[in-house]
Amino acid sequence: MSKYSSMSTYMLKSELERLNMEFETVKSQSYALNMARGKPSGQQLDLSMPMLDIVNSKSDFYSEGGIDCRNYGELSGIPEAKTLMADLVDDDPDNVIVYGSSSLAIMYDTVARLWIFGARGYTPWSQLPSVKWICPVPGYDRHFGICDTFGIEMIPVPLREDGPDMDVIEELCANDDSIKGIWCVPKYSNPTGITYSDEVVDRLAGMKAAGDFRIFWDNAYAVHHLYDNPEDQDQLKGIADACIAAGNPDRYYKFASTSKITFSGAGLAVYASSPANVSEMLKRISARTIGYDKLNQLRHARFLVNGEGIAEIMKDHAAILRPRFEAVQKALNKGGLADCGCTWTNPRGGYFVSFDGPKGTAKRIVSLCKEAGVILTKAGATWPHGEDPNDSNIRIAPSFPPLGELKAAMKIFVLCAHIACVEVELAGRE
Amino acid sequence: MSKYSSMSTYMLKSELERLNMEFETVKSQSYALNMARGKPSGQQLDLSMPMLDIVNSKSDFYSEGGIDCRNYGELSGIPEAKTLMADLVDDDPDNVIVYGSSSLAIMYDTVARLWIFGARGYTPWSQLPSVKWICPVPGYDRHFGICDTFGIEMIPVPLREDGPDMDVIEELCANDDSIKGIWCVPKYSNPTGITYSDEVVDRLAGMKAAGDFRIFWDNAYAVHHLYDNPEDQDQLKGIADACIAAGNPDRYYKFASTSKITFSGAGLAVYASSPANVSEMLKRISARTIGYDKLNQLRHARFLVNGEGIAEIMKDHAAILRPRFEAVQKALNKGGLADCGCTWTNPRGGYFVSFDGPKGTAKRIVSLCKEAGVILTKAGATWPHGEDPNDSNIRIAPSFPPLGELKAAMKIFVLCAHIACVEVELAGRE
Repeated sequence: MSKYSSMSTYMLKSELERLNMEFETVKSQSYALNMARGKPSGQQLDLSMPMLDIVNSKSDFYSEGGIDCRNYGELSGIPEAKTLMADLVDDDPDNVIVYGSSSLAIMYDTVARLWIFGARGYTPWSQLPSVKWICPVPGYDRHFGICDTFGIEMIPVPLREDGPDMDVIEELCANDDSIKGIWCVPKYSNPTGITYSDEVVDRLAGMKAAGDFRIFWDNAYAVHHLYDNPEDQDQLKGIADACIAAGNPDRYYKFASTSKITFSGAGLAVYASSPANVSEMLKRISARTIGYDKLNQLRHARFLVNGEGIAEIMKDHAAILRPRFEAVQKALNKGGLADCGCTWTNPRGGYFVSFDGPKGTAKRIVSLCKEAGVILTKAGATWPHGEDPNDSNIRIAPSFPPLGELKAAMKIFVLCAHIACVEVELAGRE
Repeated sequence: MSKYSSMSTYMLKSELERLNMEFETVKSQSYALNMARGKPSGQQLDLSMPMLDIVNSKSDFYSEGGIDCRNYGELSGIPEAKTLMADLVDDDPDNVIVYGSSSLAIMYDTVARLWIFGARGYTPWSQLPSVKWICPVPGYDRHFGICDTFGIEMIPVPLREDGPDMDVIEELCANDDSIKGIWCVPKYSNPTGITYSDEVVDRLAGMKAAGDFRIFWDNAYAVHHLYDNPEDQDQLKGIADACIAAGNPDRYYKFASTSKITFSGAGLAVYASSPANVSEMLKRISARTIGYDKLNQLRHARFLVNGEGIAEIMKDHAAILRPRFEAVQKALNKGGLADCGCTWTNPRGGYFVSFDGPKGTAKRIVSLCKEAGVILTKAGATWPHGEDPNDSNIRIAPSFPPLGELKAAMKIFVLCAHIACVEVELAGRE
């Protein structure tokens, strides 16, 4: 219920006039602020600069196993990089492939492989009359983009506080063998920041579904806590254990990367799955490449060392990100948007805050912000095909702008949200 | 005609006995020598070690355009890397995508894209009853491996001194629309080391073929001369110009990498094609990744700078490789193999020498060498499905072993070749 709904039309119009005058003032200040993408700030990237000195012309360039990291080979990664990345995805190094620098690319390639070759003995998806996919919403636009590219039909399912709505998913998957996958960002989800409950993990692992149904477990924010105290951190049940226990040991593919641990453009990405899936994957990718960049693997392994090393640097990231996230909460709270029918999440980790305005306001808010010099993620991006049926959800990405700019941007955001709320209320009365 | 064919059976048998005794002596020396793959030697890799110091914790990490190379973005590559790689493929930076570190991966992905999506408006290849491919033989095993993976039917066509036999190819392509591609290593070909003549380039560009027929122009050895004097270097006509002139501007995809210029495991790979193909490619790969490793692009651009910089380091590579190639020629010549019905190439660049024994000897030579501790590329590898119908071709890769080891390995090779030649002559008389 919005405070604006209890105001007279006359009052509303004069409120809008006042807000619009404020908006004109803001516009005249020619801001150029960007909160569009979940990019780390320069400050965060600085944390990993020492990594660039670790492998140099004077250092040795051999991995543990005596492998010359400058030369060809080692398709699944050098041993120390596999150990490091296994820590990141909480798995065994033998179940891990260190695969380039982009986890998105691994996901795309994995879909492409299933599309062309099928999953170990199953019909290639390209030969099926239709392929469908469970898409928890709001979700990550680039996940949906992969489905779009392949012409996979996306079925939106509500993402709740504890994960996607499992009642809906179980019902869908039990009755439709053409549903072949689900996108999951199970911890500090993009964009709501929620973490799947143990029950959701178990139900995903154990539910009835097609034999080649696959859980795409994009644990992009596995270690991306905002608070150092373990009690203030979300915990996620392991999908591998859950799938093994449920008798579906090959149902999951894990993905992660160091894109938001070291360098977004030059990190390490990882794939982990069951021994059967890993061996299938290695067979397939051996036709594609002789190996990934092992010097970068060596850099990462020497810099981060293991899970503890990762946890250490993540504390430094948190120290930079925490004030930004808190500034967003403060701006939204102080801005009085809760009284206008707006809601938003207050995550304990990850990269985003998910904001919902009243129905029909998201596009307008994003467009007003743009007019005032603040670039947000496109409204609708969190839904398949970029179409949010309620036109209410906006993803706020506080990581990239310096704190001062973020505060300025959030002030503008709040103003634009008020304008859109008033406008939609007025439009409803016509 | 082999000298062994003019010997009596008695003489042959005693010759074999003598050779076998020599072989036993060699075996007892427990060699472990490897000439299997076209890997650069450690000495060559050392040439690029200074590159590892160029981007460090004290240096700046911005590209020309002010792009922070540590962060996300720049799908087609940073400007200076595009300029550098454009020099390598003799094209315009606008027609270039700097795409990861493995050109094999780009080729695989390109086939996969055509397989799934088709070439700009054409039917996806996966939906055709059959897809065929021209494979000049002897050729590169990993090219054939890609076709194998996709179930593409490979049509072997003889590779001659001036390139693949164009009479055969023109006849095939004019009459069969299911022929969709050809693998070309047009300069210092793998494994024969020949370079395509201008006429072959023009005929490939201009011949009648399916509208979505594509030339996969893997110019892996574009700058890999063994001799510094330009008169001793092969020259290759540009495929882009030829295709444009012939009215088939979208027929070619160029591929190359710095795998044998800087680091085999951590170089830059490049794709170049017509503006229409490049824009299609960018659209497709934007669903797959946000960008490739820009720090490695920056390293390469600052280290190699441009085509002249590339030519400089290639002279240093040549100085290391030349003695190895000359040692191979010397061993084969001195070993008297020409008198035994053997032939081999004497290339002016690239990474390989192609050796042909009498029919039915290649597998035996490779297996004898293995027994004596010398690992060669598998016999047959230079043919589709690894099946050389004559069982005669062996790819010799002299780059990796230190010169001393190479000489020892070639001695053993010569001995094994003699044994196989005598054996096959004797077998023919039974």
